[in-house]
Formats: sequence, C-alpha cells, structure tokens
Amino acid sequence: MLVMMQAHAAPDEIRAVCRKIEELGYRAHPIPGSTRTAIGITGNLGAVDPAPLQAMAGVAECIPVSKPYKLVSRELKEENTVVDLGDGVRIGGEELAIIAGPCAVESREQAFAIAAAVRAAGARLFRGGAYKPRTSPYTFQGLGEEGLQILAAVRAEFGLKIVTEAVDNESLELVERYGDVIQIGARNMQNFSLLKRAGRAGKPVLLKRGLSATLDEFLMAAEYILAEGNYNVILCERGVRTFTDHTRNTLDLAVIPAVKRLSHLPILVDPSHGTGRREKVLPLSRAAVAVGADGLLLEVHHQPDQALSDGYQSLLPAQFEQLIEETRQIATVVHRRLPSARLADRAVPTGQA
Amino acid sequence: MLVMMQAHAAPDEIRAVCRKIEELGYRAHPIPGSTRTAIGITGNLGAVDPAPLQAMAGVAECIPVSKPYKLVSRELKEENTVVDLGDGVRIGGEELAIIAGPCAVESREQAFAIAAAVRAAGARLFRGGAYKPRTSPYTFQGLGEEGLQILAAVRAEFGLKIVTEAVDNESLELVERYGDVIQIGARNMQNFSLLKRAGRAGKPVLLKRGLSATLDEFLMAAEYILAEGNYNVILCERGVRTFTDHTRNTLDLAVIPAVKRLSHLPILVDPSHGTGRREKVLPLSRAAVAVGADGLLLEVHHQPDQALSDGYQSLLPAQFEQLIEETRQIATVVHRRLPSARLADRAVPTGQA
Amino acid sequence: MLVMMQAHAAPDEIRAVCRKIEELGYRAHPIPGSTRTAIGITGNLGAVDPAPLQAMAGVAECIPVSKPYKLVSRELKEENTVVDLGDGVRIGGEELAIIAGPCAVESREQAFAIAAAVRAAGARLFRGGAYKPRTSPYTFQGLGEEGLQILAAVRAEFGLKIVTEAVDNESLELVERYGDVIQIGARNMQNFSLLKRAGRAGKPVLLKRGLSATLDEFLMAAEYILAEGNYNVILCERGVRTFTDHTRNTLDLAVIPAVKRLSHLPILVDPSHGTGRREKVLPLSRAAVAVGADGLLLEVHHQPDQALSDGYQSLLPAQFEQLIEETRQIATVVHRRLPSARLADRAVPTGQA
Amino acid sequence: MLVMMQAHAAPDEIRAVCRKIEELGYRAHPIPGSTRTAIGITGNLGAVDPAPLQAMAGVAECIPVSKPYKLVSRELKEENTVVDLGDGVRIGGEELAIIAGPCAVESREQAFAIAAAVRAAGARLFRGGAYKPRTSPYTFQGLGEEGLQILAAVRAEFGLKIVTEAVDNESLELVERYGDVIQIGARNMQNFSLLKRAGRAGKPVLLKRGLSATLDEFLMAAEYILAEGNYNVILCERGVRTFTDHTRNTLDLAVIPAVKRLSHLPILVDPSHGTGRREKVLPLSRAAVAVGADGLLLEVHHQPDQALSDGYQSLLPAQFEQLIEETRQIATVVHRRLPSARLADRAVPTGQA
Repeated sequence: MLVMMQAHAAPDEIRAVCRKIEELGYRAHPIPGSTRTAIGITGNLGAVDPAPLQAMAGVAECIPVSKPYKLVSRELKEENTVVDLGDGVRIGGEELAIIAGPCAVESREQAFAIAAAVRAAGARLFRGGAYKPRTSPYTFQGLGEEGLQILAAVRAEFGLKIVTEAVDNESLELVERYGDVIQIGARNMQNFSLLKRAGRAGKPVLLKRGLSATLDEFLMAAEYILAEGNYNVILCERGVRTFTDHTRNTLDLAVIPAVKRLSHLPILVDPSHGTGRREKVLPLSRAAVAVGADGLLLEVHHQPDQALSDGYQSLLPAQFEQLIEETRQIATVVHRRLPSARLADRAVPTGQA
Repeated sequence: MLVMMQAHAAPDEIRAVCRKIEELGYRAHPIPGSTRTAIGITGNLGAVDPAPLQAMAGVAECIPVSKPYKLVSRELKEENTVVDLGDGVRIGGEELAIIAGPCAVESREQAFAIAAAVRAAGARLFRGGAYKPRTSPYTFQGLGEEGLQILAAVRAEFGLKIVTEAVDNESLELVERYGDVIQIGARNMQNFSLLKRAGRAGKPVLLKRGLSATLDEFLMAAEYILAEGNYNVILCERGVRTFTDHTRNTLDLAVIPAVKRLSHLPILVDPSHGTGRREKVLPLSRAAVAVGADGLLLEVHHQPDQALSDGYQSLLPAQFEQLIEETRQIATVVHRRLPSARLADRAVPTGQA
Repeated sequence: MLVMMQAHAAPDEIRAVCRKIEELGYRAHPIPGSTRTAIGITGNLGAVDPAPLQAMAGVAECIPVSKPYKLVSRELKEENTVVDLGDGVRIGGEELAIIAGPCAVESREQAFAIAAAVRAAGARLFRGGAYKPRTSPYTFQGLGEEGLQILAAVRAEFGLKIVTEAVDNESLELVERYGDVIQIGARNMQNFSLLKRAGRAGKPVLLKRGLSATLDEFLMAAEYILAEGNYNVILCERGVRTFTDHTRNTLDLAVIPAVKRLSHLPILVDPSHGTGRREKVLPLSRAAVAVGADGLLLEVHHQPDQALSDGYQSLLPAQFEQLIEETRQIATVVHRRLPSARLADRAVPTGQA
Repeated sequence: MLVMMQAHAAPDEIRAVCRKIEELGYRAHPIPGSTRTAIGITGNLGAVDPAPLQAMAGVAECIPVSKPYKLVSRELKEENTVVDLGDGVRIGGEELAIIAGPCAVESREQAFAIAAAVRAAGARLFRGGAYKPRTSPYTFQGLGEEGLQILAAVRAEFGLKIVTEAVDNESLELVERYGDVIQIGARNMQNFSLLKRAGRAGKPVLLKRGLSATLDEFLMAAEYILAEGNYNVILCERGVRTFTDHTRNTLDLAVIPAVKRLSHLPILVDPSHGTGRREKVLPLSRAAVAVGADGLLLEVHHQPDQALSDGYQSLLPAQFEQLIEETRQIATVVHRRLPSARLADRAVPTGQA
C-alpha cells in the first residue's frame, strides 16, 4: 500500500505516519515528490488495512498498489529518479550518462591509457572490472583489490566516476569503498543475498538485467535493493538470450519505454554485451539513445586484440569518439544531451580535489 | 560460384559466359554493378568447376561463394539494391520508405480516411491487408479481391504505392495485378512454394522475417525469390519470438546492421508488429531509423478501437504525424531523409494518371 | 457454442438441429460420442444466441465454448479421436503408431531397402518426403510425383501405410492421391491456405508443430483443418527453437499431456527432428512413449552417410530395431503396445490386394 | 591437459607426477579410475608443455583436453561418478535417487507429515528449503537456521538424507553443517563466488541448471566446484526458459543423454519446477526415468493449497506414491531400479543412530 500525504503535510505529520506504520509491524519508505510525499509500506505479507492510517493528520489517501513491486513503481513516485554522483555527474537527468572503459582492469598502464581516451571524448564515468564473473574457472578472474586501487587512481587522475562490479559480499564491501557506483552483473540479477547487501550500501547500484529475466523479475530485483533503503538504483539492459546467432545476445530496446512507463528509475543500455560484436556497437548505441535510454555502458580498449577478456566487442578509442559524435546528435532530437568534452576538462580539478 | 567480369567486358562477352553456364546445366544470373558485372551461378548441387569459364573472354576471375546464399550476398553485388517503384518512390535509397496504413482493409471509407491522413503526413506507400493470415479460422480473414480493388482505388485517388500481402498462389496473382509490392508475411517466410511463385512475379516482394528465423534462414528465404529471377526483394524485421512478455515480440534491431553487412538488399522495420503496443511504436521507430533501417512499416487506424484486427497496436493519425516528425530528425543524423509532405502532394497527379 | 444432444436423441432430431444452425447462417459439425452427440457451431464471429436451439426436440443443453478452439476441444468430444487408416492400422488407439523411413525418397532401391528393414522391425507406416521444404533453394528438393509413385509401390510391396508431406495445393492433390496420410510440415503450420485445403482432403492429416508455435497456435492450426470438415487430424511435436545448442531443437515433451488435456486429437513425437542427433533419438523415443505420446515419427536410413538430407539424424536399421524393442517395454508400462513384427507380416497380403 | 598414468603405476609415481605439476605452478587433480588413474591439470591459462611430465615414471600419455571443461569431462574419467551419502544411499548408481519434500520447510509438523509420507512411498532423500530465493522481497523467504534444524530432526526421525539450498556463503556454512547435500539453485548457477565456496565444502553439491544456461555453461559451472577439490557434484535439469506458455519452463530432457556423453557426473531431473503444473509432474517423471536420468527431485506437500510457496506444482502424497509405482516399472526397462519401501524401513535405525 501507498500512503499519499497532502501537499501541505507537515514534516511532523509525515513522521507520525511513518511511526504508525512501524508500530503496525511494517516498514515505512517516505519518498518526497515535487508536490507531495508518498510513503511506501513494505514488510506486509497480505493486504494492509488502511483504516488506522487514513484517519491521520496530513494523509490525503491510501492507495493499494496494483503491481508486485512498490518502491520502484511510478505509482509511488511520479518524477524520474536522478542519481547524483557529485561533481555535476547525474544519471537519469537531461544529460546522458556515458560510462566507458575496458571489460577488465588489466594494469595501471592499460586503465590510464583508456581513461585518457574516453575522457577526452567526453565520458564522465569509467567502467572496468576488478572482479570478473567468467564462465570458465580457468580464465582471467580480475585483479581484485589491486584493480580497485587502479580504478581509484583513475578517478584521482582523470576526474572520472568509477563504475565497477561486485560479485559477492566481500567484493561489494571493497567496491563500496573504492568505487562510485556498485555494478551487479546479469548473472547475479537474482542473487538476492547480494541484492540485499547492495541495498544496505552507501553507494548507488547499477543493476544489469539477467539473461532471461522478464521485465517484472528485473523490477523485482531492483525492488530488493530499494526495500533495504538504497533508492539510488540504475537499471541496465544488456541483451537477452534468444535463438539468434548473428549477435551474442538480443538487445531488447523495447524494454526501455516499458521501464519508463512502470518505474521512476533510470535505465541505461550496454550495446557491447548486447551485441558482442564491435561493428554493431555504434548503430545500436544510436538506437539506444533514440529509444530513450538514459545513457550507455560501453567497452573501450586501446588494444582490443590483446585484451584479457571480451576484446572482440571492445571499441577502439577512435570508434568511441565517432560514437559520441553520432549519439550526441541523436540525443538532441530526443531533448537530451551528451556531456561535452570541455565540461569533462573542467571536471578534472574537482575530481582531483 | 561467382564469375566477375572485367570492367570493360563487352555485352557480348557477358552473354557468352551466361550461355556457357546454361550449357553446363546451371542457371546464370548477371548482376550489373557500378564498375563491372558479376554473374551468379545457381542450380549446381556441388562445387562448380571454374576451368571452362575462367578462360573465356572478358572474365576477370571466378570466386567460390563462402556463404550458403549467393544472389542476396554482398560478395555478388557490392552496391545497395534500390527498388524503384516509379513516380520517384524508391526503397533502399537515401529517402526512407514510410509504408503506413491499417492492418486490414475493412471498407472503402476506412481505407480512404486512413490514406488521406498518412499521405498528408508524408507517407508515399500505403499498406493494408486484403488477405489476412489469422491464428483463428473464426476471425476476420480479409475482404479478398474486393479489398484489393479498394487498394487500387486508394492508389488512383492518393497517388500512394500499394503494399499488400499474398498468402497463396491465387492471392499472389491478384496482388501482382492490383498492388505495387507483394508482401510475404512472417508465417509464410519458409513457404518455399510461395517464395518461388513470388520469384516469378513481375512486382517487387517485401519479405518479412519469420518469428524464429535465424539471419541465415531469412537470407536464404530471400535467395529463393532471387533464384527465380526476381531481384527486387525488400526485407523486413518484425520482431522475433522470445520469452519476454512486455511486448508481443522482441524487435531485433541488431539484424539491420547484420543484414547490411552480408547483403545488398534493403531492409525495413515493422515496429507495430515488433512491439504489439501502440505506445512503443514511436520510440522503436526512432530507434529503427537510428540503427540504419531503410524505412518503416506502420499500422495506422483512424478508429483503432473499432479495427477488425490489431487495433491495439495501430497508431492514431496524430501519433503518426508526430512519428514522422521525430524520425525525420533522426534520419538527418544518419544521412537519410524522409519524404516531405509537399512531395507527396505533387505525387498525386502522377498517381492519378 | 456447443449443442449437446440428449442421450436418446433421434437421428432426425440431430439433423433438425443442424438444419436450424445452417439456417441461422452458421456451420454445424455433428460429432457422435459414445453416449451422445455434440454439435459444434462455427462461422459465427461473435456469440451465438442459444434461444432458438435450446428449445428444440432432443437438445440437452447449449454450452458456450471457453477456448478459442472448438472442434479440436475435449469440451466438444470427450473420447480420444482414433484415426483409422484401414487394414487394422489406427493412430490414437491402444497400439502406438510407428512411422519410419527416410527423410527423403531418393530412389526405388533406397525406399525398398529401408521399407523392408522397418517393416521387419514392426513398423506399419512408412514415411519419406517427395516434396522437401529445404532452407536453401540449391539443395535437393525431392523427387516430386516420381517419389510419390515409389511410395505407392512401397505400400503395394510391403503393406505399409504411406505418410508424406505436401507443401502446396498442387502437391497436396498428388499426396492425397498416392498417400495414406498427408503431412503438413512445421514451416507450414500457419500456412492457413494449405490448412484449409487439407481440411477439404479425403485423407487424414498429420500436422507438425511450428518451430515457435504456442500450444494455442498449434491447436488453432488444427482447428483450421477440422473447420473445413476433415476431423482426422494427427498432431506431432517435433521440437521448438530455443537458445540451446546441444540439440538442433528442444523437444517439448510436456506438450503431450497438455494436448491430451485440452484436445481429443492424437499426438505423436518426432525425436529425429526434435534432437537432430542420431544418438539422442533412442533415449528421447523412450521418453516420448513414457510421457504418453500416441506414436513416433522416425527417420531411418540404411546408408545415412549417403543420404541426400538429414543423414546425421537418421537411425540405422539395427538402431531402429533396438528402439522398437526398448519402447515396446516402456509402452507396456503405460498400458499401450507396439505393433508386433508378426502382425506386420500378416498385413502384407491385405496391403497388396 | 590430462596425464594418464599406466595401469600398474605405483602410488609413489602418481604422487611424484602431482608434485611435479604443482612445482610447475599448476594444480593437480588425481582421479582414480577402474583400471588406471588420470591426473587433471588446472591453473594454467594457456597450453601446458607435456615434455617435463611425459618422461616421468608411470606416465602412459599426456592428452590435451579438447573441451573447455576438464575435471567434469569423460575424457578425464570414463566411469560414472557415484556420489555416496552413506547408509546405502548413492546417487548415480543403479538405484535411482528419489528426492522428495516440500518447496519450503514451513514448520516441524509440516515437514514431519510430508517426510513420513514420502519415506513410506520409498524416498530415501528429503528436500525442503530453509533459504528460499524468491522473485519478490515481500514473499516468504524461508525459516533460515530454524528450518535447517527441522530438517536435521527429519533425518534423525526418518533416516532420510537431507538436500537443501544454500544462497550465500553464510547459509552454505549452515547447510554444510545440518544437511547431507548442498543445493545450488538455478538462479545461482553462475554465482561463481558461491560455486567456489561449495567447491571447498565437505558435502556433495546438487547444482541446478540455470534458466537459460547452455550445456557448456552448465558443465563449466560444475567445473568451478570440482576445480576447488569437491568432486561430489550432482547435476539437475529443471527446465529452461522459452516462449512456451503451457508450462512454467520447458523441460529439456535431451540434456540428459548429452550430459552423459560429455561428463561422468550424475544428473537428476526436477519435473516440479520443470513444468510448474502438478498434473504434468507424473508423465514427465516417467519420461525423465525413460530418458536415462539418475533420479528425480520432486515437490510433495500434504496440503498444497496452504503451502507458502509453489503449492500448485506440489504433488499430494497419494500422487507421489503412484509416481513411484509407475517410474519403478520404467526404471526396470532401462536397467535401473527404485529404492523399495522396505529398504527405506530398514534404513531408519541406521539413520537414527
């Protein structure tokens, strides 16, 4: 259930309603909106009796929630969620988020070379895995904490915000310390234990859609994170598994308007994993921006043939630059914009501070 | 195998090579290119011995074809195929093809009302089924020849080219007579008997991808048509069947650059069937143009709630106008353009002639 | 709607109700059951008013049909349909149907060699394609009418019933003449024009499930055939297309009990196409019989390495014999039985008559 | 790479080869076979140079492994792995494993009632979740350690071995202490961190196939567990996600013979999750045994309408008894057997000791 407070409800009234909800044995999630505050109720197994709440001061109405998810729903919060990472970097606002970098952090030299290239082209967020979930136990599994330290150095040097994956509670704790955004990968989308831990983290979470997750399952996975109190969740479509063989996965761009309708959370697209083919990343990036995504997650490598993982889907820096240029124009058509290369320049001193 | 003629090969030399190929028991498909002519060979079950051809006058080289498809392949023909429908309407050129109209022709009034609306917004091609392949034998199956006559009247009145579906040899003969482009639907993509008949038709063929067709199967289905001598084939992605439930099908936009790489044939996108949800047609249309499609196939209905089929995925005329406006801007970014409404105006007298 | 007649309703009363239905502009399908006759009504677009029928002599009740399919439904006919092919060969009864033979008829010698082998092992039906729907236009497309003549000779010589595929109206006419069961292949499952023609044929129809057909679509395709008056339809599961790569298709054995629940039609399993791997045909055949299928459709070839199509999924005669032996024992457990080799012997003289 | 020792190789020679492998920086996995020992090498990123090993005493040959998986491969170990749980309960041997119980442990009363029923029918293993991975954070998540204590009481009272799921490192530690087999669920199949932890556990692991896992991914997930030193892994097919809607998942029975060919590990089938429909569990159980599975994982509940999860797919005790009876007969045909109810009786005192 959802308790909608009146527009002029006093902070005290909101607090009183929350207290009442907790007394009833539930959990209260007050979500301030532009005109009024909504309070989500979780922790109930069946329906909640609205009677004891409806009569309280400042309550406008009690609305039963029609979907299995509550906190991620637009019913609860009409405005788009904008995740603020500081230094003017926001995900979900007018400016699209461009998150670029290698699949895996391989060395300080590699990370710095790529970071310099993507920052020059306008990226304000850097991606790179220190913990890699790999199909085979015998392939490169990431540098671990050493990789995270390199990422922190990238932030200090280039003023780029760091997005990197956590694969279990231990790595999540470290990612929370070193990074700016905690990524939960597709294979862990229904690792509910990890989702709950991410919900108690102090950093925003980027949640990738599972390989065969329905939209409801995707939103419910996000709900796990919000239900623990972390409302800064960014969704990411990265392709689903189908019978097709001309791409590694099938990028499901229709999920973007579908998410926008049901949820207030921002959603990005990862055309690198979504296609698995370098030459398809550019056209699908244009399409992702055109369909209304809030940004792109892209693999860039300066020496893709020597990459320790996923080299065949990584863009060369020059291709990344071209991609930025083309998507910048598409963004204008849909009333969005890309970060300018100059803005990224000015961001450096702040980032270094 | 492919026989590449020299740039300065004389028409007589080309004819001689074709004659030789036929003498060897195969079929010759001369395809003129911008600099030289390629001759495809079909009808062979195994490899063709290049010896008797290689030595002939005007022959540059004999190239074994590495793909199961030959005539649809870019190996045979490097330039994009542009299908010319007359009156300045081309599919596959710089101007995107906008094919709009109702799912089914229901009446003259309905068809004319929708035709007037889509033409005013800039469409130069009209779609509408007279033969409807329906899941149930008990639902509306189309008006048949009467529907085709209404479509012919739409062309005469509005100067719009007519795209309409054939479901068997009998209807194909009638569509060939009344229409401008013969559509083969997704459920018939591997109706090889119908494909062969379409290959002998005197009108271009729009071939929709099957619900679970791989890219190779899609191109091989087109190959059936070309192998019979009809080189005017337009492909169309309309969504594939997956586990997802937030759209009726999953629109596989990555197939557009994949087709462009392997084949010279134009390819359109049908976001109406591809999503099955009216509110998703506009964003996916923008994405389709951004990804590089040669045009759009769209369902438009002035009274979708009263439509005899697929009403819930049909755009209202005002939505169609907005779609044209937004995709027009996207088209510019990818160096394409949409037909202008004014051009459509001028087309009328020609169409009525 | 369904009109259930009283148990003691006279033939005249049944005829009168059918006449009334036709007068109302619909089509009547009287289906005699073990205790009483049901009359299906088709041809209505909306609901049928029961009033004029309910009051007629002999009518027990008028039942609205809850599913989109009517004539294939168990609501209409509670008893299993048993398709009788003569000479004691029935599909859908206690004895399982074993339909075996090559993918394609290649020559009289090939067909006779395989027919002798499968008959000796106990098969009573012979399969073999004279018209082959092939992905590529450049691969063997079947012997056509010559192939059908070979199949007719197989019947005369070995007393085996002939199951063979029709791919269009022309081939269907010939298959109807030469064969015993008209097969409609997976790629034509929604070739509604062909289904309607099969519905007017005088021979039973074996309808294979489409590569991505839902259960409802499968049953609706069968409904097309029954709606035209041909009630002798045999369904066949042959695997659906999924992301898996260890078999050519994914055999969906759960569809067998699902069909049995909703429909009175018999359903077979084709583990040859369903797996596409010779070594998996035997275990999946055991599973198909165990799950409750009414029989098996199997590819057998005496020289699979030289087969013109699908050799890698064809069983050798000795493997087929072993399969018969193992499935015979499974059949006993589910209260079914396989034809005995001796029965097949006795069938010969009848078949030759 | 694989080092195959000679048949008469002395234990000292085997130890020397293992020592050499470790000296080279790799990890050695000696796997005794019926005639000779194979030593798997892991920890290498590229190919291993066979020279230093080939020359050692007792070495027969060094075989490069052709598959990405090594330790799970039949190339390494030809004989079937039989997981011995003590008290005569083995998985992978002649006797099929029947693992039955509720989806979730709800109370001591519920667990005991169901345990009594399944034991009486012949089950020797009990399943029941104390940690439930649920799509929604707001549904019953399991009793946790209290549930494990109830399961331990079930073992003490009924002599049934306990199979129960771990969802993270914390729960795995507890499951390792209270249970007999650690289950890793489908949603965690590529939770590599959890797989590694399971590989260090002292109890066998039952690994369920992911919803969209290919066979290679499934075997590689098992390889993660073996690579850490735990060779007691039991695989389980539980249905994959496809477009079909007549069952919750599509049970891919062809994966059973495919696994048997490539791997020495036992594989079970879970027709409860595989179909999600109570009435389809019996026929698919028969099919699973017929296809060659090493056992069944089944949901049984005495009051399915009151179950806190998955009630609609749980069998009633009487249905379970019938299932045991029918699959017992199928098992005989494939030269396997089911535990007899009497054997289960005798097991009690041992279990209670």
